[in-house]
Amino acid sequence: MNHKDTPKDIPNGILDGQMVKLDASTRENLYDTSYYGRPMDGSLDLTLIEAAYLVYKDRITVSHEGRKLDFEGLVCESSRREGNFEVKYIVFKDLRERGYFIKPGVTDFRVYPRGGKPGKTPSRYFVHVLTERQPIPLMDLVHQVQTAANVRKDLVIAVVDEESDITYYEVKLTSMKGDMGKAAEDAGIRATLLEDRVIVWDALSSELLHTQHLYGKPLDESRLQLSLIEAVYLQEKNIILIEDSRVERTLTQTEFSETSAAVETEFPMKMAVYRHLRDAGMVVKTGYKFGTHFRVYKKVDPSVGMRHSEFLVHAVDGGHVFNLLHLSRAVRLANSVRKQMVFAWQTGDDILYLELGRMKM
Amino acid sequence: MNHKDTPKDIPNGILDGQMVKLDASTRENLYDTSYYGRPMDGSLDLTLIEAAYLVYKDRITVSHEGRKLDFEGLVCESSRREGNFEVKYIVFKDLRERGYFIKPGVTDFRVYPRGGKPGKTPSRYFVHVLTERQPIPLMDLVHQVQTAANVRKDLVIAVVDEESDITYYEVKLTSMKGDMGKAAEDAGIRATLLEDRVIVWDALSSELLHTQHLYGKPLDESRLQLSLIEAVYLQEKNIILIEDSRVERTLTQTEFSETSAAVETEFPMKMAVYRHLRDAGMVVKTGYKFGTHFRVYKKVDPSVGMRHSEFLVHAVDGGHVFNLLHLSRAVRLANSVRKQMVFAWQTGDDILYLELGRMKM
Repeated sequence: MNHKDTPKDIPNGILDGQMVKLDASTRENLYDTSYYGRPMDGSLDLTLIEAAYLVYKDRITVSHEGRKLDFEGLVCESSRREGNFEVKYIVFKDLRERGYFIKPGVTDFRVYPRGGKPGKTPSRYFVHVLTERQPIPLMDLVHQVQTAANVRKDLVIAVVDEESDITYYEVKLTSMKGDMGKAAEDAGIRATLLEDRVIVWDALSSELLHTQHLYGKPLDESRLQLSLIEAVYLQEKNIILIEDSRVERTLTQTEFSETSAAVETEFPMKMAVYRHLRDAGMVVKTGYKFGTHFRVYKKVDPSVGMRHSEFLVHAVDGGHVFNLLHLSRAVRLANSVRKQMVFAWQTGDDILYLELGRMKM
Repeated sequence: MNHKDTPKDIPNGILDGQMVKLDASTRENLYDTSYYGRPMDGSLDLTLIEAAYLVYKDRITVSHEGRKLDFEGLVCESSRREGNFEVKYIVFKDLRERGYFIKPGVTDFRVYPRGGKPGKTPSRYFVHVLTERQPIPLMDLVHQVQTAANVRKDLVIAVVDEESDITYYEVKLTSMKGDMGKAAEDAGIRATLLEDRVIVWDALSSELLHTQHLYGKPLDESRLQLSLIEAVYLQEKNIILIEDSRVERTLTQTEFSETSAAVETEFPMKMAVYRHLRDAGMVVKTGYKFGTHFRVYKKVDPSVGMRHSEFLVHAVDGGHVFNLLHLSRAVRLANSVRKQMVFAWQTGDDILYLELGRMKM
């Protein structure tokens, strides 16, 4: 656009620090109908992003030190004055052109629901803008989700990739609860540890554990293999007794937990999440094929067997820092198989769950 | 199975170190028709895995120190004698039951093509067995691919997950070549660096770079945004000149490369791969939405625009160690969108490419 013959009646704003000040008379045209800027005594104050967008739309001009700035000049000036200016501009432009009204907010933007208007409707989303190469600590995300939740907003992360395409993610804390009954405790089923998996040799016990409670995977028609994590859990409940094929005696819970933890450094972290999910009545199986620790079912009808798991759950530690490329891969894969992507971590005696899903704005 | 009333004429083998020795008279039944074991002077020697499978099938019994071992006893003994015994047994059983003949090999197994027979047909695959929690160095994989290729075999990785499900991956070294023409060098198009992206302000140049050569993404109708990596490449070819909005002068190649590298530690590694792919006539765009560094097109018809990219390419360094969970996620996502997953790394002045794809055996 940027027509050479700009009509004379386009209002001109003055660049002043991190804002552009327009005459108060512009309020009717820019704020009352389109909700740009913040009406003040004697002026309408635009953010640099709003100003750049309105220059692009030929609705205002901007002067600085007595000179008119063209779009290029204003963008270069703004980029020097405000961190992440270009990516925030890209997201602002995208949301505005999708029909949303946007105000500056504690994350980056407050966004009104479709059809909602500043001053008339509450805003709905807190939007935080990141570029694909910015790592983000789990705790920062959690803090932002809580900040948004405190004022009843949803947190949305807008990730701008190298190509300036935007992916929006809805982020929320969630709880996990299933409807499965528990296996009878103290069953004392005999099982053997072989390196990194455990085998139940008895056909009836195998059937009970697998068909009724969805533990393990049949080795053949009469024997069941349990994963280490399943075996530790079942031993904790005294449902199985574990023999070690090397020492030929039953292992105590402490011995077996230590053996298991030695196989894999992440074991205790995964175990805590597995235990919490199983205790909450969910069926938890490996998520290897989906590149996550677990796939999780709310309920499995034993007569039908495992069909569609609702969640992919990945255990992380509280100090985890998300690489956005890995996050993108995890969420995209989960959503492509119609599952929710959930990250889980231990805090004190509790496990917290953060759900991330791609969203169409 | 394991019928209590085992018929008396089932041959009995003797456990002897890492093998089970059967009388030579078993050769006709076990080797000549089914290709189990290795015929020796006076005996047929089975691997522990073959022996366990044949005990499971009630085709042999096995004795050790004068006592018959049942399946459980043999598996426990074998697990003490051979590393990774259970997972290798799981893969052997799976392949056997899919109708493949299998022999021990330098990786773990040599597998014959469907319908192929030991001694009559050459084997086709080298199969290497891993559990989902075993990390594998890139260089180990490359070495195995080369070992297999030297005797004209394909390398297959069989990953056994916690639940004892198997995922097979075909692994091969590949080359990357495209059919795109090059942009005219020394065009000297003016562009500006703003933080971590570069903007071309001129409409005609933007059109040329984007429509003809698929660089960048339009910021609006007349301006183009280039990613840092695109900008470094175009500057190297003297196609663009880069001004820094902060210092208000043109940057040298060294200055701009250093600025770019400072934005992201992985930048030089990614840049080397990007340059190699573009120089090979391919179109290279960000793979963020697929959780990888690049999506790559062999050819894009400018009149049609970008449609389906054939490859996802992820840059790693030569010392990279694959976490199989991450590998699973990358390959699964790539295959779900009908793309090849390729890992790329620099070695000397060259870039090598390793392609991994899920395969149905």
